[in-house]
Order: sequence, then C-alpha cells, then structure tokens
Amino acid sequence: MGKKNKQFVEKVTAMEDDFAQWYTDVVKQAELVDYGQVKGTMIIKPYGYAIWENVRDELDRMIKETGHSNVAFPLFIPESLLQKEKDHVEGFAPEVAWVTHGGEEELQERIAVRPTSEVLFCEYYSKNIHSYRDLPMLYNQWGNVVRWEKTTRPFLRSSEFHWQEGHTAHATDEDASNETDRMLNVYADLVEDYLAIPVLRGRKTDKEKFAGAKYTLTIEALMHDGKALQSGTSHHFGSEFAEAFNITYLDENGKSQYVHQTSWGLSTRIMGALIMVHGDNRGLVVPPRIAPTQAMIVPIAQHKEGVLDKAYDLRDQLKGLVRVGIDASDKMPGWKFNEYEMKGIPVRIEMGPKDIEKEQVVLVRRDTGEKEFVSLSELEERLPALLDEIQTNLYNKALEHRDEKTSVATNMEQFKQTLDQKGGFIKAMWCTDVACEEKIKEDTTATSRCIPFEQEKVSDTCVCCGKEAKELVYWAKAY
Amino acid sequence: MGKKNKQFVEKVTAMEDDFAQWYTDVVKQAELVDYGQVKGTMIIKPYGYAIWENVRDELDRMIKETGHSNVAFPLFIPESLLQKEKDHVEGFAPEVAWVTHGGEEELQERIAVRPTSEVLFCEYYSKNIHSYRDLPMLYNQWGNVVRWEKTTRPFLRSSEFHWQEGHTAHATDEDASNETDRMLNVYADLVEDYLAIPVLRGRKTDKEKFAGAKYTLTIEALMHDGKALQSGTSHHFGSEFAEAFNITYLDENGKSQYVHQTSWGLSTRIMGALIMVHGDNRGLVVPPRIAPTQAMIVPIAQHKEGVLDKAYDLRDQLKGLVRVGIDASDKMPGWKFNEYEMKGIPVRIEMGPKDIEKEQVVLVRRDTGEKEFVSLSELEERLPALLDEIQTNLYNKALEHRDEKTSVATNMEQFKQTLDQKGGFIKAMWCTDVACEEKIKEDTTATSRCIPFEQEKVSDTCVCCGKEAKELVYWAKAY
Repeated sequence: MGKKNKQFVEKVTAMEDDFAQWYTDVVKQAELVDYGQVKGTMIIKPYGYAIWENVRDELDRMIKETGHSNVAFPLFIPESLLQKEKDHVEGFAPEVAWVTHGGEEELQERIAVRPTSEVLFCEYYSKNIHSYRDLPMLYNQWGNVVRWEKTTRPFLRSSEFHWQEGHTAHATDEDASNETDRMLNVYADLVEDYLAIPVLRGRKTDKEKFAGAKYTLTIEALMHDGKALQSGTSHHFGSEFAEAFNITYLDENGKSQYVHQTSWGLSTRIMGALIMVHGDNRGLVVPPRIAPTQAMIVPIAQHKEGVLDKAYDLRDQLKGLVRVGIDASDKMPGWKFNEYEMKGIPVRIEMGPKDIEKEQVVLVRRDTGEKEFVSLSELEERLPALLDEIQTNLYNKALEHRDEKTSVATNMEQFKQTLDQKGGFIKAMWCTDVACEEKIKEDTTATSRCIPFEQEKVSDTCVCCGKEAKELVYWAKAY
Repeated sequence: MGKKNKQFVEKVTAMEDDFAQWYTDVVKQAELVDYGQVKGTMIIKPYGYAIWENVRDELDRMIKETGHSNVAFPLFIPESLLQKEKDHVEGFAPEVAWVTHGGEEELQERIAVRPTSEVLFCEYYSKNIHSYRDLPMLYNQWGNVVRWEKTTRPFLRSSEFHWQEGHTAHATDEDASNETDRMLNVYADLVEDYLAIPVLRGRKTDKEKFAGAKYTLTIEALMHDGKALQSGTSHHFGSEFAEAFNITYLDENGKSQYVHQTSWGLSTRIMGALIMVHGDNRGLVVPPRIAPTQAMIVPIAQHKEGVLDKAYDLRDQLKGLVRVGIDASDKMPGWKFNEYEMKGIPVRIEMGPKDIEKEQVVLVRRDTGEKEFVSLSELEERLPALLDEIQTNLYNKALEHRDEKTSVATNMEQFKQTLDQKGGFIKAMWCTDVACEEKIKEDTTATSRCIPFEQEKVSDTCVCCGKEAKELVYWAKAY
C-alpha cells in the first residue's frame, strides 16, 4: 500500500498544494479529456464521455417525463437575427465565433456559430404559434455551442461545450413561471440524486441574470476548494423576446397576446463539479448511479489455475445486476488498483485463490477505502446495497463539507475575514442595491451566487452599506 | 372516405405528378423538418427528431456491441491541420465554412467548421498510440458537421447535418479491412432490419470513393422514383493518413509500424430514404420498429359516456407492450385519421360505443389500409404480430420495387433506353477504365453506385467501350 500511494503522489498533485493543478491532473490521469487543436476546445475521451452519457440519459428521461420534445435547431445564426433582442446580443456578441466564408465565397452576411439558441427558437415560434391551442410549446435540444472565451479550462469553461437547452413558450406569465421553477427542480433533482451533489436553489440578482431574461433561477454547488459553481440555470423571459420577435397567439376570446417564454440549460460544466466535489488525492470518485462501471473485478494471482475462469463466472453472474467490468490484462494487480482508483470506480472486487477456496470475494470501497469480505452467496444482495451506501455517503460528505464552509457575515470586515480564512458560502443580508453588489465583488472578488428560496434574516442591515436589509444572499468566489 | 382523400389531394402533391414536390410536401405536412434561417440548414421538428432518435439509439447500441467507445471531438479544425492530407483537403476545402473572427478579434489562422473529422482523430492518434497494446482504437462520435452545399434539400443534402462518424486505428491492413466490412454490415443490418429498406452492398469505384481513402464500401438503396441513395459508407484508409500524420506504434518485436485506419458514417440522410422508399400519396409510412408511436388510439363518438374512459383504459393496457398514443382532442375523427396517416403511424386503433359493446377494437393498417376487428381479449397477441407483419410487408414491397426496377444492359443504347423508360438500377459490365465511367455519366447522368460483393457476369464486354469486361457495376441516377 505504501508503494501504491507513492505512485499516486507522483501522478496527481495534492489538492492542498495546488488545487488548480490537482484538477488538471485528475482530468488527464482519469482519462476524461484531452485538449483540442483550437484553443479552449476539448476532446472528451471514452471514459469522460461515458459518464456524461449517463448524466445526459437521466436528464433526457426527466425532460421527456415533464412533457418536452427533443428537436434539433441549426448551428448557425445570421448576424441580423442575433441582433434582434438588444440585451441578449450585448451579452453574447463579444464571445461569438463568426463564419465569414463558405468555400471560396465571402458571405454577404456574417454568421454566428450559436452561443445559445434563443433567437432561433423565437424566430420559429413567431411563425409556428398561432392560437392558444398551440401552447405550451415545450422544446429541448442536445447540442454543442461555442463561446469564444479568453481563459479556458476543461469542462469548466471551454470554447465549445455540450449541453441541452430547453426553450418553451406559454400563454401566461404564470405558466412560464411554473415552467421555470419546474425545470430548476429537475436540475436540482438530477444533481442531488444522481451526481450526489447538494445544491442551493435560488434566484440570480439582476446583475448576474441571463442576458435578456426577466429573472434567472440557479442551482449552486460548493467545490472542495470552497469556490462555488453555477450548475444549471432556468430563465424566465416574460414577453421581452416575444415583443422583439413578435410572437403572438390568439387567446380563447380571439384577442392577440404575446407569449411568455423560458429557457434552461445544463452543460458538460457539471462534469467539473463532479470532479471537484467528490475527487480526492487518489483521483476521481464517481457516484455509483452515474458510474459507467460500478464494480471492477480484479483477479489476484490470475496465472493460477481456475482463477480467471472463476472471475469471468463472477462477471457473468453480476452482469444484469450492476454495471460490472473485469480486468484480466497481464498488468500487476497493484497497477490495476491504481488505475481504477484514479478513475473513481465505486467498488473494486478482488478475487484470488484463497477467496475462491473460501467462496468469498473482497469488496473495496473507493470512497472510504474500507474492505469487506463477502461470501459469494450474499454478494448479489450486498453489492447493490453497498453501491447505495456509497451514493448516500458521497452526498452526505458533500453536504457536510458545504455546511462547514457556510458562514454568516453581518459586516464587511467579518465578510472578508471569513472569505479569506474559510472560503465557501457567505450568507449576508443585502439592500438590493447593485452598487453594494459591485462593491462587494470589487473588494472581495466574491459574487452573489443566489438569493435562496429559503430566506432567513441573519441581520437587519445590508452587509455592505448598513441600510435596511431586504434579502438574504449567498456570496462566494466562483468558477 | 371520399372527403378524406380529397383533403389529401389538396395537401400533398401526387408523387406521379412531381416527385420532388411530393417529397417537400411530405417533409412539411408530416412535420419532420422546417427550414433554418441560414440557407440549407434545417430545423428537425419533434416528430422528425423522434424517428431519428430511434434510428440513432439502435445504431448506437450496435456500435457499442461491436466494441466501440463514444467520444466527442471538437467542432473546429485549424486550417493547417485540415491541409495535412492532400487528397482529403482537396475533397473537402471547397465546401468548408470558415470561422475568421472570435468576438471582436480577427483570428491568426482560419478555422474550419468540421466537414468530417478524420484529421482531428489522426492528430489525436499520433499522440496517443504508442504500442501494439494500444490497438485497435475504436472510437465513434455523434455530432453535427457542415458542408457548404450549393443545392440543398431537407435530410438529403443540408449544409449542416447530423451523423455518427466512426474512426478506428488497427495494427494491420487486414484488421482494418475486417473493420471496414464489419461496419458496413452493421449499417446494412440497421437499414434492412429497422428501416425495412433493402440495400445493395458493394465497393465504390475509385472515382466515387471518399477523399483520402484506399477504398470505400457502400450500401445503396433505391427510392420510389427509381433514383438511388447512398445510405452509409465505410472507408479503408490503409496507412495514407498514418503516413501524413505520423501515426506509428511499436509492434511486438519493438519495430515501428504505421497504423491502418478506417472511418464510417451514417447520417440524417437516411431519413430521406425512409420517406422516399415507404411514403405514398397519403404521406409518410414509418416502419413499426422505428416508429415513435406504433399504434394510435382514436376514440369514436368520444362525447358518449364511457368512451374516453375505455380508450384510456386501452392505452394503459397496451402501454408496456407497444409504443401507443391516444388522441382525445376535440378534433373530428376524420381529421385525426388524416393526421396520423400523414405521419405514417403504423396502426390506428378505433374504438367507439359499438366496439365497446362488442368488446372489440378496429385495427387499421397504414401500409395497406386494411381493417380488422379484434376482440379485446386477443388484442395483446394480435397487435404486436400485426406490427411485425407490417414491418415485413414494407421490406418486401421495397424489395419487390427494387427488383422490378433493376435491369441488365449490355450496350449503351440499351442502357440509355432502360434508364429513360424505367429508371432504377442498371446492371452492366465495366472494363474498370475511369474514362468509360465518366463517359457513362456524361451521356446518361447515371453514376456508378457500387461494384457489388455478389458479382455476376452479365456479358463479356464493357457496356461502354466494348473491351474486356472485368467487373459488374450497378449504375443509377442518384441523389
């Protein structure tokens, strides 16, 4: 074991020493991502993609269960179309990749590679919505978008990323509001139940909301280094876009009305949260529910007669029960242990001649390192239960960490001190004046993460200006 | 019924009158696609996308079962990288969309929006393949690509389209050759077994092969109007790309060797085949195995007491058995019949007060229009069997049509006459000289579709020049 740990010290920078380097090392060593040729693009490798596919499939199921249909809108947006809604274009134009030539020909109008697709859906809705009978229109698409970012990091901020974007149109503001809530809750359920990451649910301040939105709801998670990560957002547009794009319908009384719209997105960014919430100095830790391989069989002394046969029998036995793999390569078991710990596979199953004799296996948990001997006759019961325990434990550990790193501040001195010493979330009251929000960011680099749905009154005055407090805000340094 | 048919005459142009217009009408009326803002791009609507998702899911399963891993490579290719393999860049450069600006900044090097991703995979393989132990590398990705086409049509030729592209690297030429065969067969199985479209399997001539390939295998299908559609291709690259990109590995003797590569792709183009092989003058016909809704319940006289309740009961009863829908909207049954015939839903289930009394339903087949009365007690057995019959019938009808439209020609006069009068595939011998292939195209607009794996000798001399015949070729006008 000493030797094994040593190998890891060589492989992955300790997160206490350099968290950013630890992240980069894990991404590389766990074989999640490689860098693309164009700056800031990423190659998602088989293991990284298999995790993403599991996340995607669960979310896709939830999106369909809530009544949405998948569609595929184009990658390309004419410049004139992007400019139709003013706030929106101001928010996105600085980071658009522009296509100017098709083959040898210069285009008459520049084309944006979509940074997001609101305007495409709006244009479609303006032509395809006529009557209240057409509403709601509940569309979703899975795809890639491009944002020309200056500083990029795999998953967290890449020039191209993968996501789903939902776009819906409703008859009333209230319907749109319910949809905005519904989809935020879908995201929260996905992230908490499948990725085992506890999230805060709340509303963004006007300063932090989506370009063109009436308001933005968000789920916010806390990473191991005490920084926050916005993990999914749901936007209520009111009828802003509908007015810009003239999206109207005839109501039951034959009167023309603007629709009310929402959009919501969750991206490969969530893979960054997965790494930074559960990972440790031995590498990635993947929650069982989204792990491509939930249990990996490593035969011990596999050259001895009968060992490999029994290991394959075990694999066949477990196949329908859990997502099980086997590594029968000629690498040393220690190397295999390292590899699957680095990849964060929830359970390792060891089986050697002695175990075969005793009709047992050894189960080793990735999250705690604990070993247990389980008889073959009890394995089919024990293994799924163990996976559930790991899933729960990962969530509880992350919640405990977040609670530890959540503090109250009632004045700026306390705010700064806590942020410097502990990081994490600072709960502090706010007067709702954007000047205070900007000052806090300037003085501390912390931003408002959300105005939580569950409000408390931790003091009577704004943490910044001392005037009357109106809302509790969670603040943090963020990715 | 007379009235209903009249509505359809108004809705969809008869395919005998104008096949191209019929196609456009079906695409629109069956709600498969709408046009994007940028020329040649398409919006795949919910129903079109649901069919594509079913095709995709089956193919994805087959690709994984044959040992491949999904990955996601970037959308963007630097110009210098695209230029590394000469034949390849010559083939694709004329139809590349070029990104020249990121935000406000002009880029130092132009970036291609991928028209296909060979060079990206090659660059990756050159860095990540070291030893024979790393081989084979079996990657696949689902994504969008862009080809700046002059003439575009939904599904058949769109500026942006969706597909999967497999990219593999092997130790030997033989391994790559086996892979090329394997994946062509996967495509053929998918298209025949799921889309109910019979295909020819063969090799492309050198003139028609993929830019940069040693050879290209293809599956070719025949549309209702007698034109062929290339429906999936599998390319053997030999070590051409490996030499251009320096992709080498150390073999078991420690000697450096070039890898041997393949790529293979199947795209949303197959949706065009689906429409043009099975569709009729009442609209789309979707084979049951890929139909998003296999059976649609239409209640008759639904205002009468108990009808809707029974219809919902029926839906619940069939739910786990087939993909079943119900239309309980207040539209007239005739309208509903029209809509689901247009959408090609395989079976309509009618249920009215009389049927309820007799404890039966009426099943109406989309493919033949035949009606049958089935007692509720036999329905769970009959409905799945009927879906199988429809699937088989669609395949057989398409095969019969292809056989009818396949002719032999032994001289050019016969070739032209048959092509003019019947269209379809012309089987004719070829000397293998590209000059003859070009002359045939010039004189007839027919192109060589494939050199079939199942060779016959239909005459001793080349259909064009009269010299010694070497290979049987299928020729046709094509999309």
